[in-house]
Amino acid sequence: MSEVYAARRARLRERCEAAGNAAALVTGHANVRYLAGAAPGGAALLVGPAEDTLFCPVEPFGAAAAAPGPGCRTDEELRVHTLVSPDGDPAVAAAERATAAGARSLAVEEHHLTVARHRALRSVAPRLRTADLGTAVEQQRLVKDSEEIAALRIAAEIADQALGELLESILVGRTERHLALELERRLVDHGAAGPAFPTQVATGPNSGLAGHTPTDRRVEEGDFLSVALGAEYRGYRSEIARTFVIGTAPADWQIELYDQVFAAQRAGREALAPGAACRAVDRAARSVLEAAGHGERVGPRTGHGVGLENDEDPQLGPSAMGKLDACVPVTVDPGVHLPGRGGVRIDDTLVVRPEADGGPELLTITTKELLAL
Amino acid sequence: MSEVYAARRARLRERCEAAGNAAALVTGHANVRYLAGAAPGGAALLVGPAEDTLFCPVEPFGAAAAAPGPGCRTDEELRVHTLVSPDGDPAVAAAERATAAGARSLAVEEHHLTVARHRALRSVAPRLRTADLGTAVEQQRLVKDSEEIAALRIAAEIADQALGELLESILVGRTERHLALELERRLVDHGAAGPAFPTQVATGPNSGLAGHTPTDRRVEEGDFLSVALGAEYRGYRSEIARTFVIGTAPADWQIELYDQVFAAQRAGREALAPGAACRAVDRAARSVLEAAGHGERVGPRTGHGVGLENDEDPQLGPSAMGKLDACVPVTVDPGVHLPGRGGVRIDDTLVVRPEADGGPELLTITTKELLAL
Repeated sequence: MSEVYAARRARLRERCEAAGNAAALVTGHANVRYLAGAAPGGAALLVGPAEDTLFCPVEPFGAAAAAPGPGCRTDEELRVHTLVSPDGDPAVAAAERATAAGARSLAVEEHHLTVARHRALRSVAPRLRTADLGTAVEQQRLVKDSEEIAALRIAAEIADQALGELLESILVGRTERHLALELERRLVDHGAAGPAFPTQVATGPNSGLAGHTPTDRRVEEGDFLSVALGAEYRGYRSEIARTFVIGTAPADWQIELYDQVFAAQRAGREALAPGAACRAVDRAARSVLEAAGHGERVGPRTGHGVGLENDEDPQLGPSAMGKLDACVPVTVDPGVHLPGRGGVRIDDTLVVRPEADGGPELLTITTKELLAL
Repeated sequence: MSEVYAARRARLRERCEAAGNAAALVTGHANVRYLAGAAPGGAALLVGPAEDTLFCPVEPFGAAAAAPGPGCRTDEELRVHTLVSPDGDPAVAAAERATAAGARSLAVEEHHLTVARHRALRSVAPRLRTADLGTAVEQQRLVKDSEEIAALRIAAEIADQALGELLESILVGRTERHLALELERRLVDHGAAGPAFPTQVATGPNSGLAGHTPTDRRVEEGDFLSVALGAEYRGYRSEIARTFVIGTAPADWQIELYDQVFAAQRAGREALAPGAACRAVDRAARSVLEAAGHGERVGPRTGHGVGLENDEDPQLGPSAMGKLDACVPVTVDPGVHLPGRGGVRIDDTLVVRPEADGGPELLTITTKELLAL
């Protein structure tokens, strides 16, 4: 694997040099991990000017103070420098090193670096000109390689397994909080490092709410139950949501709403293709719900990229710019919530693939039929 | 409660005005929560110039698009403004509002605000002079009121209960990851909103490592088992760590190491008093371990503040500035890890109290005897 990280850094270095910057300082956590293979909290990665160095904060007790800790093992071409003072800032140490190595300009991630840290690094290296690296690393992360997709595939499989087991257990009378914890335990049972994001379980009037924090409400007969979860596997994060009805034949309004969201989600999935505009995918899903009279109830977007972060580019929304490429994993996750009644979320993780390869690859394979549990 | 938040904001406003700033823009998540009573992700709080306003990002689907969501309910004197565009930045909207209200200067949290957001808000309000609010809100949060301490007391009690139940169960053969998940489930069972931080369970050679991520290693006879956990209750976060020996009489080296860390932790606890220098508390604990020959193995600090964040000021370390006040909750958490063998962590949450009130109040009451489980 180590040559993968070195190749990613070489790509970034080329881009930096083309923009006239001798070196880049990467401080976004997922960006550091992507380029270095590891990212202890607070680490900063200096790419260039001569060699690449990962600056790590001082170790908590345990590991010997000056030695790189277990979170700091990366590839052979990367130097690791662990600070010795607990008050030291890895980003500032990196700026000092860049100056010492003769760099006159340094591209920094202005959307990650705080004003205070930026000032601190300019004060230790006053002659260093800083420029904005922007989202260069995030853009590099958009298209995934086959190892990244393999990790996402396993992450999706783990979530499918956890969800499948939950559906076989008795649900009525259990609280949203307990069901969420149970799902998280099962994710870990099946090999996840942990949940990809806080697991959401929403019942009855809460069902269909995006970003719902599980409450002590208990599952009741006739409820909609919506569940959103994901697994983290080797740093990569899947996402799935499903909605079920509890214990009985669904009511007419439930069937109708479910069919509408299902049709919207299918339309979004079918719009995924290399070259498709991100906003066109959103439009495909959104227009189905608008036609059903739910336009006001659809959130600001109907899907997003996944990878080292649960929510990364591309964004699938009405004002999204850009087009999809092959090998970009995204979610398609429209939903509708009717205040006081409940709602439906259906969410899959898929990888964009050309038609010739069979079209979008569905990673989350749990059925999307409306099951009565 | 609502007058509590208004009073906190009034204090901040006075401090701002004294520094010549008409208004303050608060973007640190815990700081917003402290001053507004609620903090949806990405919210920004404008304090002054005339009235106070909480700017919230657009709601995900579910809540009506333009209405304040459930996370946004605060006190009566606070206006809530929810953005309508998903691309809008609450901090930028706040800066626009400040200019419209006639403010010429705005204090911002430069240690929270990124360079990119800072630039965006200056571009919408070019005539607004920005200054650094620094850690004014963090400093205001140091001394806790009785409601905050009551929440911490319950959070500590919940963690004690979860830990107590674990000790009664069979441990040999179970993995670190499963024990950690079990503890987190018990925290929620007992009323926690969730764990205060990722629960750490470390066995055998991993024991005593700070910040250890639970692995698939199983508990074995003769192991040291160190556990660190905390509960979040009403936003407040407790912390406790204990170390046990598994299934047998402890070995001599285990007894010796345990006694050394215990003596260091007790010395730290006994040094807590209003007016005591933060570094003196660290010194009290650290010198015991130095005398035992473990100076190199002690981490950069031996305690820290707790509250709305698991790790906040004051820091108890060799280079810490400042003195303790009454009603400041802190941890005392020295530890030693012997590579290849294991180690000991002992950590309590306490509230600094004057001698006349009985000295430091211990919130985490689980025994610190070396138990063989």
